[in-house]
Amino acid sequence: MDYENECSCSKGRWIWYPGDFEIYHGMLQNFSREEREFFWPAYWQIDGCRKNVHFQKTYLIEANTQCTVFANCQGYVCINGQKHKFQDQIRIVPGMVKVEVFAGSPDLVPAILVQGEVIYTGAGWMADDFITEPVNAGWNERYRESEQNPAIWEYEEQTIKPVMVAEKNGGTLYDFGTELTAELDVKVLSKTEKGIHKLICYGESQEEAMDTINCYYSETIESLEICLRRRAFRYVFIPETGSEDCILCARHLYVDIPVKAAFYCEDKQINQIWETSVRTFQLCSGIFFIDGVKRDRWIWSGDAYQSYFVNPYVFFDEEINKRTILALRGNDPVRQHINTIVDYSMYWVLGIGKHYEMTADREFLEMIYPRMVTMMEFLESQLDENGFLVGRKNDWIFIDWAEIDKDGPVCAEQMLLAACYHAMNFAAELLGDPNHEYELKYRRLISSINAFYWDVEKQAYIDSYTSGKRHVSRHANIFAILFEIADEKRTTQICRHVLQNEKVPQITTPYFKFYELEVMCLLGKQEEVLKKIRAYWGGMLTQGAVTFWEEYDPAKENGKEYEMYGDPYGKSLCHAWAASPIYLLGRYYIGLKPTSTGYETFEISPNIKMFREISCRLPVKNGSVYVEWRENQLRIETDRDGGSLTYCGNTYPLYKGKAVMIKNNSCETEKE
Amino acid sequence: MDYENECSCSKGRWIWYPGDFEIYHGMLQNFSREEREFFWPAYWQIDGCRKNVHFQKTYLIEANTQCTVFANCQGYVCINGQKHKFQDQIRIVPGMVKVEVFAGSPDLVPAILVQGEVIYTGAGWMADDFITEPVNAGWNERYRESEQNPAIWEYEEQTIKPVMVAEKNGGTLYDFGTELTAELDVKVLSKTEKGIHKLICYGESQEEAMDTINCYYSETIESLEICLRRRAFRYVFIPETGSEDCILCARHLYVDIPVKAAFYCEDKQINQIWETSVRTFQLCSGIFFIDGVKRDRWIWSGDAYQSYFVNPYVFFDEEINKRTILALRGNDPVRQHINTIVDYSMYWVLGIGKHYEMTADREFLEMIYPRMVTMMEFLESQLDENGFLVGRKNDWIFIDWAEIDKDGPVCAEQMLLAACYHAMNFAAELLGDPNHEYELKYRRLISSINAFYWDVEKQAYIDSYTSGKRHVSRHANIFAILFEIADEKRTTQICRHVLQNEKVPQITTPYFKFYELEVMCLLGKQEEVLKKIRAYWGGMLTQGAVTFWEEYDPAKENGKEYEMYGDPYGKSLCHAWAASPIYLLGRYYIGLKPTSTGYETFEISPNIKMFREISCRLPVKNGSVYVEWRENQLRIETDRDGGSLTYCGNTYPLYKGKAVMIKNNSCETEKE
Repeated sequence: MDYENECSCSKGRWIWYPGDFEIYHGMLQNFSREEREFFWPAYWQIDGCRKNVHFQKTYLIEANTQCTVFANCQGYVCINGQKHKFQDQIRIVPGMVKVEVFAGSPDLVPAILVQGEVIYTGAGWMADDFITEPVNAGWNERYRESEQNPAIWEYEEQTIKPVMVAEKNGGTLYDFGTELTAELDVKVLSKTEKGIHKLICYGESQEEAMDTINCYYSETIESLEICLRRRAFRYVFIPETGSEDCILCARHLYVDIPVKAAFYCEDKQINQIWETSVRTFQLCSGIFFIDGVKRDRWIWSGDAYQSYFVNPYVFFDEEINKRTILALRGNDPVRQHINTIVDYSMYWVLGIGKHYEMTADREFLEMIYPRMVTMMEFLESQLDENGFLVGRKNDWIFIDWAEIDKDGPVCAEQMLLAACYHAMNFAAELLGDPNHEYELKYRRLISSINAFYWDVEKQAYIDSYTSGKRHVSRHANIFAILFEIADEKRTTQICRHVLQNEKVPQITTPYFKFYELEVMCLLGKQEEVLKKIRAYWGGMLTQGAVTFWEEYDPAKENGKEYEMYGDPYGKSLCHAWAASPIYLLGRYYIGLKPTSTGYETFEISPNIKMFREISCRLPVKNGSVYVEWRENQLRIETDRDGGSLTYCGNTYPLYKGKAVMIKNNSCETEKE
Repeated sequence: MDYENECSCSKGRWIWYPGDFEIYHGMLQNFSREEREFFWPAYWQIDGCRKNVHFQKTYLIEANTQCTVFANCQGYVCINGQKHKFQDQIRIVPGMVKVEVFAGSPDLVPAILVQGEVIYTGAGWMADDFITEPVNAGWNERYRESEQNPAIWEYEEQTIKPVMVAEKNGGTLYDFGTELTAELDVKVLSKTEKGIHKLICYGESQEEAMDTINCYYSETIESLEICLRRRAFRYVFIPETGSEDCILCARHLYVDIPVKAAFYCEDKQINQIWETSVRTFQLCSGIFFIDGVKRDRWIWSGDAYQSYFVNPYVFFDEEINKRTILALRGNDPVRQHINTIVDYSMYWVLGIGKHYEMTADREFLEMIYPRMVTMMEFLESQLDENGFLVGRKNDWIFIDWAEIDKDGPVCAEQMLLAACYHAMNFAAELLGDPNHEYELKYRRLISSINAFYWDVEKQAYIDSYTSGKRHVSRHANIFAILFEIADEKRTTQICRHVLQNEKVPQITTPYFKFYELEVMCLLGKQEEVLKKIRAYWGGMLTQGAVTFWEEYDPAKENGKEYEMYGDPYGKSLCHAWAASPIYLLGRYYIGLKPTSTGYETFEISPNIKMFREISCRLPVKNGSVYVEWRENQLRIETDRDGGSLTYCGNTYPLYKGKAVMIKNNSCETEKE
């Protein structure tokens, strides 16, 4: 057997300048928003990848060998200074061999693949853009074959037929049963005398699809067979068409990220909330974490940050985190806040901390750290004399759609900045960055926040100290607890004077609801949170939701429930941030959390008394935990060492494959 | 007649973010280099244009009107906050109307065209990239029709048939008579049994085309009819092919920049040198000033700088200057020297000064001035403690392919920097930039140059003061005269101890020969320069040149004349910098030069005693001058006011349409 030839094809992977693959596909993502027959590119400065890249590795070759270089772009190979073409088999004689590849493209992400027995694109291949020092080339496990092109994302496909076809209002309505992100194949069977002229109307809801004027997506087709571009929908309506006139078939295109979690309890509604959250999260987890599948289809840093919380409790997929982080950041220099929002730049920094907590991926941290540093420099160029972040003229201080006093430096922004210093200090210490002062900056800022924003009388943090209004909103106070800025005493005060104070306006967006519910769980109010979950998410289910919505207001009249931003169908009915029940259930009821980075150690501290029975599997890094709760008996099993169970004040170590059962539960009594 | 509808189509022009059109096409230009079946992208960081742009203008509309927006990309129109599609006719009612267009493309330069009677893309349309403050949108006179796409350059075409077809070495040689940049249409008439399989070999020279192994471009065709991509060539050779087997036709693609100059004298060789220079310069003047048509096809700042000198004496085309300047610079921030060369960054600044001298185009200067300032900041971040420019580690200090002592700060670089300060001071003063200190910096630097580099004993500027070698090269001393750094006394000293000193190594590149010949002309050595022109350029003609070469060494043996950079056909046989006779003849023999910016006033001071007769037309801004010299009689005519004739110590004003004749020439006597 010619072993050498046999295996040479499988060696080598496509490489590019690190981050460029993600920046390129991120750019395409941010160009993919469609609305009523036009495209709507994101309204911030969209970064492109490098146009040309230099790749290299030097080998000490001991025997005659050969290699072939593939590229998705222009350029050439240079071996010890001798030029060669792409795709030619290049013979290499023993000695020191410097392999260089010059690759460039005016429009796509330049990428190369070197295949060979000894010389192939793997570890040790460096990339530079003719300016920067060479760095480790970027790559993705998905791209290893010479026929591939990393500029084209290869989606998985699933063919879905309508589950219901019904004639309505003189036309035909097709229901695909669930929300899809699909290309639609339309085959017209009956041609009228006027020729083919069919209006295809899409809807996340039946109402939207049948509103042929106002539906978000519609397209007129003029040919017998057509494949319409990828769109998000559950329903399709074709007016003036009988149910026998057309055949529709959806090719659902998705990124196959396996679901590693399962949750079952005696409460059907909660089970359905879990399932629907998972479905919602899956749909919004494509190449990147996006906000929603119909709208905006953009990568928003604030939304992505929440997805980093959910991810480890359902996918434990490290790759989508990295892709999202890289795409959001773009290239140096930082010229604009991420998504134009000051807080979103900071969530980007915090997101990396969150990712590291989940993965302990030092290689990624090393790669991204310089970009974190330049992001911090960008933020620190916008501080006032007290070290408070004020942004630049026209910068967007968002925090939330809420009444927040944004006069002068805003409290919640300073808390995010403090959290960034904290995360940066961790990264800098870990990587041994010698001269950083993040710890010092963190301590100084915390002290300034407490000096300027804590209102002794109101027993709360105020939004602004410059306006004189001493306005209290929930937001900064939630952050104070989440980021451990408030000590125990103040936490109690905040709890009473803000969180449980009806006079302080309620959080109205599911976006910030995420943080509020988390804080409530942190404070042990799981019973109350479960009620809220039932009311809010259960409410959507009652309205027939198959995925969770961008926003839900039970008070909204019938026919108005899909309205948002002044658009009758402006609301996204499949929105990532609505998937938070996964996180809340996993983190605060099952009680799983890492106790060291990368889940080297992890803890399960269940808070599940409000359930009669639970059967739940959750992923951890390189493994999973299985929790069963039935008849007041708890059973925990893991397929990895490193875990521990904390229950009723006791801690039990968890060993791979050895279930821990707690039969006689003294907890209940103690609690009573 | 429906006048309104009739003319509405012609109103409006395509617009883009200023500079993006040029950066985009410049990127394509720097990707167009081909060599032996592969592409060779430029080896510096190639900038791309913006991905998305926001355009706007606010109107006070007095009567119902309408407009239509066209785009070559994605996006939408927003009129007073209401979204519309591209290509829809949009009705607009009276009142204040804010028209905004959001346009983006993942790969092309985003551009829009608004057509309408009142609302159309013309003056007052602003562009921003979501970061910068809005600036005047960029545009180009060539793009006014809705069917056009500014991402596609529309070349003029000329069909050229071979002037000679001859069977040689078992194949057929086609001679197109002159160098072309053409697509080649190949029609194969006789199909052999083996199918079609023809090797098409190109050559700038016959030798190159017939060297089927080593020729720069070759391509194997497998079909009966094919159009081969644009390449530079004069000859095509097809081996194993009879002269009746194929029909070849070249579609020469070029940018039609009219030649506004003519030169005729009694010396046929000089006439041919002029004509060949013009042909060479035309071929190298496409969308941009490039170095050569076969190689590199790149935009080099040093080469372009010399083209800015030639341009006013043959095209007087302002547009190609602007396109080249914008493409070379790319976007902020400056991360790298232009073409990676420190001196080339400075030629870029000086080139704008040269352009302004020619055009007095204040609008362009205002647009480019901020980019000049950031370029100067980049340069000034690389100064040493004496204010000398040293570049950064790995930056390329080029000056010339010559023995220059490059230890420490190099003298010629400082002289370029001084010239930059001088040009910046002029621009800053003109535009009223309040706080600049270019004049001060200029004076300081000049004083330091004289203190550190003038060697009293050698009576010359030395290359380096740090090495202790006190090495004298011609380069810095040429700059000292050109940039008026040396006073009259030192100029005389340099002349004697450097320029006329055989011991100082000769300039060997035509690139720096340009400056040397200019200095010699400035010093009144026109007779000597003419001899050099006859020997060097005349020598190429003797060797059969139809365009002038990158380099010419009469001593090179037969068969070696096309060799360069270790490549048997590496030499470009059509190279812009070889067109300098146009400039030298126009500027220093006819003696035309502007005496104020934009040729508001200009002078003709002929130095043509070495000719028996001359008939020459040269352009000036918005006009031309016509010079006749015959039987010692001089006749000057202009079609514009503002000129003056300086001749034999007298000055004569020139008036539009009124010829000045100088019949009895007393000069000759005086000179004797």
